[in-house]
Amino acid sequence: MIERSQFEMAYLSRQERARQRLQEDGVDALLVTLGRELPWLIGYEAMPLERITCLYMDANGAVRLIIPKLEAPRVRPLPGLELVPWTDGEDPFVLLGSMISDAKVIAIDDRCMAGWLLPLMGHATRASFRSGTSLLNPLRRQKDALEIEMLELAASAADRVAERLNRGEIPVALRQERDVAREIGEALCEEGHAKVNFTIVGSGPNSASPHHDPTTRIISHGDALVLDFGGTYSVGEEPGYCSDMTRTFVVGEAPEGFDGLYEVLLNAQTYARENIRVGMSGNEADQVARKVIVDSGFGEYFVHRLGHGIGLDEHEDPYLSSDNPALLEAGTTFSIEPGIYIPGRYGARIEDIVYLDDDGVRSLNQAERELIVL
Amino acid sequence: MIERSQFEMAYLSRQERARQRLQEDGVDALLVTLGRELPWLIGYEAMPLERITCLYMDANGAVRLIIPKLEAPRVRPLPGLELVPWTDGEDPFVLLGSMISDAKVIAIDDRCMAGWLLPLMGHATRASFRSGTSLLNPLRRQKDALEIEMLELAASAADRVAERLNRGEIPVALRQERDVAREIGEALCEEGHAKVNFTIVGSGPNSASPHHDPTTRIISHGDALVLDFGGTYSVGEEPGYCSDMTRTFVVGEAPEGFDGLYEVLLNAQTYARENIRVGMSGNEADQVARKVIVDSGFGEYFVHRLGHGIGLDEHEDPYLSSDNPALLEAGTTFSIEPGIYIPGRYGARIEDIVYLDDDGVRSLNQAERELIVL
Repeated sequence: MIERSQFEMAYLSRQERARQRLQEDGVDALLVTLGRELPWLIGYEAMPLERITCLYMDANGAVRLIIPKLEAPRVRPLPGLELVPWTDGEDPFVLLGSMISDAKVIAIDDRCMAGWLLPLMGHATRASFRSGTSLLNPLRRQKDALEIEMLELAASAADRVAERLNRGEIPVALRQERDVAREIGEALCEEGHAKVNFTIVGSGPNSASPHHDPTTRIISHGDALVLDFGGTYSVGEEPGYCSDMTRTFVVGEAPEGFDGLYEVLLNAQTYARENIRVGMSGNEADQVARKVIVDSGFGEYFVHRLGHGIGLDEHEDPYLSSDNPALLEAGTTFSIEPGIYIPGRYGARIEDIVYLDDDGVRSLNQAERELIVL
Repeated sequence: MIERSQFEMAYLSRQERARQRLQEDGVDALLVTLGRELPWLIGYEAMPLERITCLYMDANGAVRLIIPKLEAPRVRPLPGLELVPWTDGEDPFVLLGSMISDAKVIAIDDRCMAGWLLPLMGHATRASFRSGTSLLNPLRRQKDALEIEMLELAASAADRVAERLNRGEIPVALRQERDVAREIGEALCEEGHAKVNFTIVGSGPNSASPHHDPTTRIISHGDALVLDFGGTYSVGEEPGYCSDMTRTFVVGEAPEGFDGLYEVLLNAQTYARENIRVGMSGNEADQVARKVIVDSGFGEYFVHRLGHGIGLDEHEDPYLSSDNPALLEAGTTFSIEPGIYIPGRYGARIEDIVYLDDDGVRSLNQAERELIVL
């Protein structure tokens, strides 16, 4: 069990790094509303309703949470965090406006709604606004020890669901895709996830659709089966971290040509785990796996990027993608998930969440990757 | 069955009214991203992902949807609607920027994210931005015939769930709140909803918490039971409209003092349905029900507003609330939902969705309102 005090220390350390960033970039105030920067900085998740919750931070050390009075009891105390509740009938933008009226540069999270940003701008007419998300992304990419531990817990819980599937404890044959999806979701919760984020169950020709929505199709003998699932794992009342993994199965026996395709895919995924390094660009990392698949003649069937960062968000920096020239850094976590999809016939994908440091990639998922016949 | 052509006519008529509004208000361009104004205007619901989908309209008649190329096949054709797909690697803000670079006044939906609004502002440096949501709310408040029909279908489906409860077909006694919640959700879907939005099951002392999250508490003899549920009802592939209703029950027998409380509540709800009129303010409408409850000595236990508008959104204009001085108009739809909550003991609420016109209020929900013993 991770103690509350460890989380508190992590929040305070992140605030300190964020403050340094504000100083370096000449930002007078940082505002965070619906973005995941809020739980990252203070461990609190705002209710996504019409009433605004907004964190105010400045380079001088102020850390204030402007929050609807009804929701203030949800916030656990944190050293240095000042609560500023507002009541119905009061104008929260006047309240916030008084804090930012003299600011020249204000950073605000990307998720803030225009319906809040425009009135804030009306109260800070001399300020230029920039993205607080871009400002903090370089810090959020670097996972601290607590975050690695949380992501390991999440990945292990997802692994246990994969192992249940391997052992046939979640039956798939002759069942509807959506029933299997529901049961995978239940298993994610039983294994400790607080919330299911998605369950993709693509069988037969549906396995060739990377983001397939589970249907009433009956999973049958000779089907390929792509199972991609993930949820949010939390400890105590702290914000949760995401799991996300994919395994591919065959039901009864592999369809014609599928074994060869899967071997290429597994080679590509293994090669990527063994060869992606700190200092490669997102594009170069994507190419590590892509080259194996292209050289085997399946290049046109690998139709998406190789991976995405993961943490408090399911998808975050860094992206392993042809359009990302940024260099991969030590301390980051992301998915490695090549796929090969033959339209109308079948598809396959293998996905692990990994941690990158100067020794290379370490997979947080451990479940079997060899093709399993169910 | 409502025909696609009826929806098309409604979308085109709304666009025409929106265009008039742009002209009257001197707005050069209207942008809509994640807000419900998008389905209201063109019948399309954007995927809430990182890639921007944005409707561009101007007073001259242009209606363009800037959309990720992968998602363009999801859009059904609509006369006059021009699709402008953008591909990964292309900058959608440059594309949109070229359309708004000369605009002086731009209206944008409240739900647009800061991560999109800030780059748009960078491409329209001479423009002032205002709320497109406020601009269109007066139009969206006025429901057209098709919307009334959709809201009637949604309310009837919810009524059928209430009737199942009345007949004991969804058992409640000796079951956990959350199991009953799940079964109400399933019933909403069986009765035609595409999606469950919420199911509140508050039993015993939990019935005194207006927004109670269902727990593992066992519903027992002598409990009051507040059931508040709603979903989204759609026809074909058109955007769905919301249901939202509350009924209160007792299990086995009413706890001491509850019958009297319920009688006051039912009188207040009935009196509000019979006496709310076009031209009252939101505050006055709230007072119609509140006065009955205050006069009976329960005033301090009615702790929320009387109602909220409903349509494509669960909560929208108009609000029947002490802080709303705006006058109620004919053609609007909203909830009437007084409640009385005695902390630690029990609570009750009765909620109907109603339509207001010059003849007064007509309830779209018809299910029994007398206290039923389950």
